[in-house]
Amino acid sequence: MTDKFSKIAKRMKSNIIRELLKVTGKPGMISFGGGVPDPETFPRHEMAEISREILENEYRYTLQYASTEGDPILKEEFIALLKRENGIEGLELDNLLITVGSQSALDLVSKIFLDEDSIYFVSKPVYLGAASTFSLRSRQYVYMNLTEDGVDLDELEQSLEEIKTRGDIGKVKFIYVISNFHNPGGVTISLAKRKRLVEIAEKYDVLIVEDDPYGDLRYDGEPIDSIFKIGGKDRVLLLKTFSKILSPGLRLGVVIGNHDVIRKMVMAKQAADLCTPSLTQRLAARYLQRHDIMAQIKPTIALYKEKKDLMLAELEKNFGDMEGFHWTRPDGGLFIWFTLPEGFNTDEMLEMGKSENILFVPGIAFSLDDTCKNSMRLSFCLPPKNDIVEGVRRLKKVIMEYGKERNLL
Amino acid sequence: MTDKFSKIAKRMKSNIIRELLKVTGKPGMISFGGGVPDPETFPRHEMAEISREILENEYRYTLQYASTEGDPILKEEFIALLKRENGIEGLELDNLLITVGSQSALDLVSKIFLDEDSIYFVSKPVYLGAASTFSLRSRQYVYMNLTEDGVDLDELEQSLEEIKTRGDIGKVKFIYVISNFHNPGGVTISLAKRKRLVEIAEKYDVLIVEDDPYGDLRYDGEPIDSIFKIGGKDRVLLLKTFSKILSPGLRLGVVIGNHDVIRKMVMAKQAADLCTPSLTQRLAARYLQRHDIMAQIKPTIALYKEKKDLMLAELEKNFGDMEGFHWTRPDGGLFIWFTLPEGFNTDEMLEMGKSENILFVPGIAFSLDDTCKNSMRLSFCLPPKNDIVEGVRRLKKVIMEYGKERNLL
Repeated sequence: MTDKFSKIAKRMKSNIIRELLKVTGKPGMISFGGGVPDPETFPRHEMAEISREILENEYRYTLQYASTEGDPILKEEFIALLKRENGIEGLELDNLLITVGSQSALDLVSKIFLDEDSIYFVSKPVYLGAASTFSLRSRQYVYMNLTEDGVDLDELEQSLEEIKTRGDIGKVKFIYVISNFHNPGGVTISLAKRKRLVEIAEKYDVLIVEDDPYGDLRYDGEPIDSIFKIGGKDRVLLLKTFSKILSPGLRLGVVIGNHDVIRKMVMAKQAADLCTPSLTQRLAARYLQRHDIMAQIKPTIALYKEKKDLMLAELEKNFGDMEGFHWTRPDGGLFIWFTLPEGFNTDEMLEMGKSENILFVPGIAFSLDDTCKNSMRLSFCLPPKNDIVEGVRRLKKVIMEYGKERNLL
Repeated sequence: MTDKFSKIAKRMKSNIIRELLKVTGKPGMISFGGGVPDPETFPRHEMAEISREILENEYRYTLQYASTEGDPILKEEFIALLKRENGIEGLELDNLLITVGSQSALDLVSKIFLDEDSIYFVSKPVYLGAASTFSLRSRQYVYMNLTEDGVDLDELEQSLEEIKTRGDIGKVKFIYVISNFHNPGGVTISLAKRKRLVEIAEKYDVLIVEDDPYGDLRYDGEPIDSIFKIGGKDRVLLLKTFSKILSPGLRLGVVIGNHDVIRKMVMAKQAADLCTPSLTQRLAARYLQRHDIMAQIKPTIALYKEKKDLMLAELEKNFGDMEGFHWTRPDGGLFIWFTLPEGFNTDEMLEMGKSENILFVPGIAFSLDDTCKNSMRLSFCLPPKNDIVEGVRRLKKVIMEYGKERNLL
């Protein structure tokens, strides 16, 4: 039946990161690959007790179909959380939609906004989960290069001006950004750039899709107002998730935006998966009611900060004096973007890495045009500290071998 | 931002049934509307205990991202269940995909098979959950009228022949059928018709998508071999769900098919929602290992049979002697399809129904071309028995009023 596949199905490629997850389990393997949090950091005892209780006492809700919009109790609690933690005010229930993780939120965004000829902006490197679902609807993406303080907004404005000049500005739907601790870049968009991004979006009447899965995992520096808070819900659609603060296993994403956009996303979700599981939604809702989720992740933040600082130190130790090697220094999140001199192909190096029992994600996984070949994404959250030291050592071995073979060093 | 919506977004209509769910809760309301099972029938105590246990002891799995393919333990158990209950043999793990309910399976099917000009066959009336996601990808549907023993296969073969003659047979992707206790029709495809359907699909080289959410809810008669068992996995894609046998709140669907098709659906799922929640998957897996799920639903089956027989008796009592009123007599499932004389518009009658505190689903909700106006779907599973009697009485009141107003009686 494969000859019957649709055009987009023939275009679909398997997600390298998801595939990497499969070899992660190999004995002796050290993985800097997956952006998966450490399950030890999640409040399993509390969640176990709550889940037992809501299945016993709230089974009429937890075992039944939920509304497509999502659990009202969870939405109430999340509105309170956004107010308390992010100073976001004035949200009503119909400004929120609970999705099956942020991935399905991204899929709904692409469904309700993108036609085949629609234009959208993404960073380079780009989070592939977003790019993959956007590009199934339209391949008219425009890149903004990542910078130390976010994305290149001069580049953005110039592109928008060109598009306007050729009369296609109406086709531009949204600018997709990860505001904090970019995946894979690790960088954060500065306050000045957030404000300017909103101005640009208003000038050209474009929506901003702000993806913020990592914002609560800040290890250094001060929190910055979200683009959503700066631009407001009629200009910015905010994507949040429970995956990094409570558990990815629950698959709970939250979309916050203008109620007309949320309403349309609800209609799209009716056809996509009917509703998010009521059990996982109510579990998160009761957890938020009974526990201080931000206090709960403090030890996690402390742990990840140590691991992050350790990996940065090890990179410095091993590559600090090597010409053309540089990496980002994130203030939070899970990722460091490690760039090697031109000529290195991290995709080719992956097999060598596997045989040396060290995994990383090749830069090509974050590109829509097979670029970023000389970069890789390193995640520090999952491996124990001694594995971080040993892993960077193995990485160096692979890099030296490959570099010598190719006369790049 | 609504002016930025995509063409398909502008086409999206809200699902009437999902909207009906919202008024279902109104005090005094009797609902024959939603096809939702009775939560009292689900094994909540066992599920509560298992969920507590797997969050305590299997948290490294249940709180972590799952593989896109789905929980291998759940797939093993489901393969065993299909062998034991349906005599389906020779399935491997890579023939199965666990989805967020059957709805997302339908969405993945439409993504991997349908282009804008793709042709597919659906019944009339059609399950709107399927039709809505198919029609977002392509509007080139062809109807097969529902019959007492399934669908009109002469109609199907004739349409296929015409399409072949005009040289478009390559555009035909699949025939979508609900094999047992059709939603909304209540009818079951006979063994003879299942065999002929497979022959027709082979003759014209078309895939059959067999949706079977209700097959395990049989109240009368003998089980019939699935179309999947007759046609095999290279010809038939089988969709099953836990929603009717364990709980809709878990949102667990299972797709069974050729491994190339499953593999492509996995790629589509990576971009759609990354993975199905690991908690709900493992919960179902452990339940299947420890309990006989089919024994568990026996009381449910007995209960639903009584309710079904009662509703049929009440329909006979109230409408048996009325010209042009007829209804289906299902051997299982949740629905009766009630057809009124031409001229009745059940969509218009819905408001009258609401004010009389009786809900049903207007036939138009199961049509892609605003037909089926003089039919309605009645669900008997959720209301208590006395509500079934009272509900049919209220239904008659609404019908008599409307009929007299319009001089239809």
